[in-house]
Amino acid sequence: MTEVERAFAEDTRVQKMLDVEAALARAEAQAGIIPASAADAISRASRAERFDVTAIVADAHSAGNLAIPLVKALTRLVSDDSPESSRYVHWGATSQDIIDTGLVLQLRDAVPIVVRDLRRAASAAATHARLHARTPMPGRTWLQQATPITFGLKAAGWLDALARTMESLESALTGALCLQFGGASGTLASLGADGLNVSSRMGALLNLPVPAVPWHAHRDRLATLACALGVSCGTMGKIARDVALLGQTEIQETIEPSADAGGSSTMPHKRNPVRASRVLAAAIRAPGLVSAMLSAMPQEHERGLGGWQAEWDVLPELVRVTASAATSTADLLERLIVRTEAMERSLQMTQGLIMAESVVMALAPHVGKSTAHGLVDRAARRALDDGVSFADALALDQEITRSLGPGALADALEPADYLGVSAQFVARVLAATDSKTKA
Amino acid sequence: MTEVERAFAEDTRVQKMLDVEAALARAEAQAGIIPASAADAISRASRAERFDVTAIVADAHSAGNLAIPLVKALTRLVSDDSPESSRYVHWGATSQDIIDTGLVLQLRDAVPIVVRDLRRAASAAATHARLHARTPMPGRTWLQQATPITFGLKAAGWLDALARTMESLESALTGALCLQFGGASGTLASLGADGLNVSSRMGALLNLPVPAVPWHAHRDRLATLACALGVSCGTMGKIARDVALLGQTEIQETIEPSADAGGSSTMPHKRNPVRASRVLAAAIRAPGLVSAMLSAMPQEHERGLGGWQAEWDVLPELVRVTASAATSTADLLERLIVRTEAMERSLQMTQGLIMAESVVMALAPHVGKSTAHGLVDRAARRALDDGVSFADALALDQEITRSLGPGALADALEPADYLGVSAQFVARVLAATDSKTKA
Amino acid sequence: MTEVERAFAEDTRVQKMLDVEAALARAEAQAGIIPASAADAISRASRAERFDVTAIVADAHSAGNLAIPLVKALTRLVSDDSPESSRYVHWGATSQDIIDTGLVLQLRDAVPIVVRDLRRAASAAATHARLHARTPMPGRTWLQQATPITFGLKAAGWLDALARTMESLESALTGALCLQFGGASGTLASLGADGLNVSSRMGALLNLPVPAVPWHAHRDRLATLACALGVSCGTMGKIARDVALLGQTEIQETIEPSADAGGSSTMPHKRNPVRASRVLAAAIRAPGLVSAMLSAMPQEHERGLGGWQAEWDVLPELVRVTASAATSTADLLERLIVRTEAMERSLQMTQGLIMAESVVMALAPHVGKSTAHGLVDRAARRALDDGVSFADALALDQEITRSLGPGALADALEPADYLGVSAQFVARVLAATDSKTKA
Amino acid sequence: MTEVERAFAEDTRVQKMLDVEAALARAEAQAGIIPASAADAISRASRAERFDVTAIVADAHSAGNLAIPLVKALTRLVSDDSPESSRYVHWGATSQDIIDTGLVLQLRDAVPIVVRDLRRAASAAATHARLHARTPMPGRTWLQQATPITFGLKAAGWLDALARTMESLESALTGALCLQFGGASGTLASLGADGLNVSSRMGALLNLPVPAVPWHAHRDRLATLACALGVSCGTMGKIARDVALLGQTEIQETIEPSADAGGSSTMPHKRNPVRASRVLAAAIRAPGLVSAMLSAMPQEHERGLGGWQAEWDVLPELVRVTASAATSTADLLERLIVRTEAMERSLQMTQGLIMAESVVMALAPHVGKSTAHGLVDRAARRALDDGVSFADALALDQEITRSLGPGALADALEPADYLGVSAQFVARVLAATDSKTKA
Repeated sequence: MTEVERAFAEDTRVQKMLDVEAALARAEAQAGIIPASAADAISRASRAERFDVTAIVADAHSAGNLAIPLVKALTRLVSDDSPESSRYVHWGATSQDIIDTGLVLQLRDAVPIVVRDLRRAASAAATHARLHARTPMPGRTWLQQATPITFGLKAAGWLDALARTMESLESALTGALCLQFGGASGTLASLGADGLNVSSRMGALLNLPVPAVPWHAHRDRLATLACALGVSCGTMGKIARDVALLGQTEIQETIEPSADAGGSSTMPHKRNPVRASRVLAAAIRAPGLVSAMLSAMPQEHERGLGGWQAEWDVLPELVRVTASAATSTADLLERLIVRTEAMERSLQMTQGLIMAESVVMALAPHVGKSTAHGLVDRAARRALDDGVSFADALALDQEITRSLGPGALADALEPADYLGVSAQFVARVLAATDSKTKA
Repeated sequence: MTEVERAFAEDTRVQKMLDVEAALARAEAQAGIIPASAADAISRASRAERFDVTAIVADAHSAGNLAIPLVKALTRLVSDDSPESSRYVHWGATSQDIIDTGLVLQLRDAVPIVVRDLRRAASAAATHARLHARTPMPGRTWLQQATPITFGLKAAGWLDALARTMESLESALTGALCLQFGGASGTLASLGADGLNVSSRMGALLNLPVPAVPWHAHRDRLATLACALGVSCGTMGKIARDVALLGQTEIQETIEPSADAGGSSTMPHKRNPVRASRVLAAAIRAPGLVSAMLSAMPQEHERGLGGWQAEWDVLPELVRVTASAATSTADLLERLIVRTEAMERSLQMTQGLIMAESVVMALAPHVGKSTAHGLVDRAARRALDDGVSFADALALDQEITRSLGPGALADALEPADYLGVSAQFVARVLAATDSKTKA
Repeated sequence: MTEVERAFAEDTRVQKMLDVEAALARAEAQAGIIPASAADAISRASRAERFDVTAIVADAHSAGNLAIPLVKALTRLVSDDSPESSRYVHWGATSQDIIDTGLVLQLRDAVPIVVRDLRRAASAAATHARLHARTPMPGRTWLQQATPITFGLKAAGWLDALARTMESLESALTGALCLQFGGASGTLASLGADGLNVSSRMGALLNLPVPAVPWHAHRDRLATLACALGVSCGTMGKIARDVALLGQTEIQETIEPSADAGGSSTMPHKRNPVRASRVLAAAIRAPGLVSAMLSAMPQEHERGLGGWQAEWDVLPELVRVTASAATSTADLLERLIVRTEAMERSLQMTQGLIMAESVVMALAPHVGKSTAHGLVDRAARRALDDGVSFADALALDQEITRSLGPGALADALEPADYLGVSAQFVARVLAATDSKTKA
Repeated sequence: MTEVERAFAEDTRVQKMLDVEAALARAEAQAGIIPASAADAISRASRAERFDVTAIVADAHSAGNLAIPLVKALTRLVSDDSPESSRYVHWGATSQDIIDTGLVLQLRDAVPIVVRDLRRAASAAATHARLHARTPMPGRTWLQQATPITFGLKAAGWLDALARTMESLESALTGALCLQFGGASGTLASLGADGLNVSSRMGALLNLPVPAVPWHAHRDRLATLACALGVSCGTMGKIARDVALLGQTEIQETIEPSADAGGSSTMPHKRNPVRASRVLAAAIRAPGLVSAMLSAMPQEHERGLGGWQAEWDVLPELVRVTASAATSTADLLERLIVRTEAMERSLQMTQGLIMAESVVMALAPHVGKSTAHGLVDRAARRALDDGVSFADALALDQEITRSLGPGALADALEPADYLGVSAQFVARVLAATDSKTKA
């Protein structure tokens, strides 16, 4: 069980709800609403290991939510210790206060773990970007080789997007970390005039900001966090897709090393991108989970009927899915084998045609851009039709060689010399994301 | 055609792409890469009304994108004016540079219109919150009356969420407003060493920040904007659902006035919530559109194959859907008829049972909380079983009347006296959202 | 743990995969490819209780799928028994053969349980339809009372849709129940010429049809099943929404009885529709799960990278969600309390206006349809403006009373006499769905 | 504008609704409810070209649906011709009857066009399957070469899935083709006892079955059609993904020929898979649209509030998206260039390792399966480590050559001899799908 799976395990969930009950009792004791001894008794009882979590989860089914059987069980437990105190359990609160605030506490534990793995992924991407800022490889658009780029530029694009997603996740988490405390309908009426006093003490005890108004019926903060998780999966999915494509048997410019000792003896050449597949699976699953969180938003009046309940499974699942993707992306990028010789070989695959734009640009100052286009076009067609290399086709065309001598032609055909501002882009990204790649 | 529909009309789209071509040419002239006269000629030609937009859209189908036929047409047009200049059209750029940056320009026009209508909605919600901060109505959870709230508190919840969604939308828009300019594969190689110079001039001309690296293959900024739009639809959907439920024939605590003169003569009593239905339709549609934007994110290498193309229809549609919801929400809240007498009547519907918690709280100091619960429970059951009012059932129970005299009982049964900190919550929200409700 | 949860538990999953391994071995022994003794040894070992399921699941993570560690463990276990036989474990198969066919076996167990609960729901709906074929209640459109219907007609609509969804589910399940057996790339090459022979024996042993060609890379059968589950959740969601709305405190035409003994002592009047909320939660979750199954379809070549892996969690979750909804819908409809007196009261709520169409129809033969409309419109406005009943407003209008005397007017205002062909519709549905409501 | 776009154009939509109004009038005239002359006048007026469609669409916004302003305009038009007749316009119907049945008529026109293009795609796939039943190419799993398959087998998989999707679409369309006619709340009360008579005449006139009960509030038939469209996009997406991957610069086993004359002069080697990108875009968009249709299903009581309205845009968009994909898939498969020499080259890329399973199977009869595995594993490692071909590594291993002489080894290394039952699978698919590939 991973850390994030643990953060959403049933017993953790129960513990977080008990933490909220305990904080409520202590806040009310501080405010003079319940006896300090009751708060002590309630706090003592608020330990998940003292509860039959499985039974509580089972009872939640018919009760309609987890807080109802938990509060009953807590009341019994407190009562065993101090019958007097048991009447103060859950005082002034409603189920949703406990469930929502408990969830917030779980998210506070879980999401930073995702961010931590994203940081690991970003660091690895930064290393690739730095090392390979000038390593040429084919840029590919429409799955076709286009013009040369560097592997560092590709990695810098990953890094830049990972840094943005870390920032979005942290910001969305900050937005979601707030106390939910409103009582039956959100007025705190059962606490009379003390509602805000208790709220602010509870917030302090749980180290959670108190929002202007209870948010039970407005789920946008959670939905926004879900969206940030979804975007994060999308960004990781893009990286995983790149890596999976680069690792194809026919390309192998990068290889995801096997996690398993061994591999298949009947297919010894295979390098199954297992981590990339996990990330891509997450990128396929996340949009539907985000969509469910958004669909759940129009909740009825002061408590939703269906929408709230849908969130209970969807949001934890989305965090788990994103966490799995983040771990896999980090592992993937940290261990990725970069095969510069394969990149070089790929650059030769079109026999020079990938450099056609470069040749146009080299010719243009001599003959004008449109003539340059025409000449290069003619040579390219000859190369394709006659099955000769582009270099040979160019060298055979006197209208071209008139402007570009052998040396100039060779230069124009050199991928390493046609990388534009790739290195500057890499440097800019490294500078801009510096704070996101250090632990 | 609404303003937002106009912002995404085909001719606007073409104009924005032409704006990008013109800025590119001017930036390159400033950088000394192309002649100033060419930039002038290109700028002169970059007027959508000079193009056969329908034909260009039709050609885009087989070409694969809109930029290819548009650049051809622009080149022809420039050539008619200045053959010399036509060779500099689109110099150093790729289709995606033009399409993506053009889209950014459209978003810059369209999203603030959505925010403007959200501001209108927020202002109207603020007015309701202020006016009805102390107007009691039933709070409802699970579609059941729970305890009293105020209509102002409900409106404050709407306002608070609207303010957050405005902020998110503005922030996501700011994040998305950046230049895309990378050339064929994102290296700007065809501009040699001048890539960054041209980029920064283009950014200045279009008043768009230049990001650390081109973002053609990383779509998270657009996806994040899509998410903010989706959350916005969810928040508006929640408001619309509340209003639709409050307007039911059996409740009518609020009424959405008919937009049409007239209404149905065969069903004269109907108050069809037409605006609310539009908002709810948007809240149903948006999650699937957001989900498509997220699913489109894992784009292959330096240009996506399917993902990028999917965005072309999905994101504009999502902005349109959100805009329609925002206009309808603003209209709905501005014109909403609030019927306090119906709220009062609803509060009487349970014959006092809605005040049971209040009576428990009044009794508890006298008999302890658990005894109080037991006594109130007994009276409530009597009321339900015997069909008498809760007030009568309480008054008949000497264990209750021993602690609470007629006056105290009447107080405990008065909804207007059991509103907790509703008014403070309203005040907090009004203070916190002040900047979001002024034009 | 429910039956469906059990059908998708990890140990069941392992058992089903072992069933496939055992069938494979027996089929190959029958075909003379492996020794009968090996098939016996493999069959003996293929008992989930003999495996450390937790360890296998953990190993699946790095291996990339569950079959790899399971086959290893099975081979070890067979080897302990008969080293000779162990070399024939998994002979000629690939992981996907075992995982996909295992999943099919799980679906064959689980989906009929869903259908069984849908049948229970349909039967309950049929009972309501039959009993209340002539019980008038308000029809409601746009959440506004429109014209009278009967509760039986509403229940017949539910029944009709439930019957369709049962049929779709059964048909989609039938479509999905087929053997997957193709070997490494779908050619069964490792079985030489015996591939089809082994396939058809395996199909016979597992009682699964053998498709024309292995379906490893084509997931439409599973996606179609997912869709049928999604539509089923939508239909149940519609029923649950109706019931939740009818059960509102202000309406209470039906009541979902509390599953819990007790209920809330502080809010004794509440009738929380717990089952309806579960169904609505399912209706909110299912679309995103269906969407993920569809997004997973474009799987690469002979085995997907991400898409296949996404299905592993999504489809079982969708079956579980639908099963939970089906159980809740059946429980809900079986126990639903129908309060005809509340329906009657609701019909009176507009003080007769709900009968305006009826009065138009009664007047039309006398004065023509458009005059009838005008007269009724005038009376309705008077009723609304002056706060008198519609009956009184009609009776005060001599142009109306000229055509309709007191008796005719009273008839035209009687909801029970303006139900059209409701009863025939109910009878048609009961006849058409007869086979779907019997166990 | 394509045929399907035309089928969903605003004026077509209006015409279909007018067709329903005309059929309603004629049915009522046949039933003796309205004068034959009125039916004639209404029929005469029911021509879209006589209406200001733009104005009607604009009015629909505030009216809440398209039928309200259309019926007003139709009434005016009939009135100009025959004032007497105008009172019978829309007699007994409600807006939803006209809108839903009009939509059904549009679907009846549009979906068969999609099926027709799917048939074209299936025919092309069948041709490839037949021609290339024995053309070897690498099978690929996890984007890694696995073992050989034939291109015909791949095409047969496409064909098989296309045939299933045609069948599903036709079946879902048949299910959706039914009359909606229920009046204000679904009872047909305004037609007294004649409701079923008029219904069945209307159904006959429109050539639409009459369901057991009106379906206004139950949208599963449309949702099921949406699902079939979604699955269809998934199947086409799978084909397009295969083709896009096969067409990569480094693979080019198939090429999608350029639709445009020309192509890029600066990147003359590119073969942008424009059609595949359109199909993949559809496969990305469709899941979100399906999800919206499912989310729209839980519609309130006798007419939805938001859900119904969401369908108006979503379902036509989904048909258009699927139609675009179907046309592109058909074009793609019809024109696909198959490069068997590239397939042959790909099969050589691993220097024989792709045949490792074949060698194991050849060795196993001699040395037992597990020894065979060990020997092949050793040779494969030597090949990978020493950079020699697999053939050489095998030939150097005396434990292998003891069992397999040069001829036997060469046979075991021949892809064309290790295709299993590929050809039989192809033949089975061709036989099973025969009816789906003929016009």
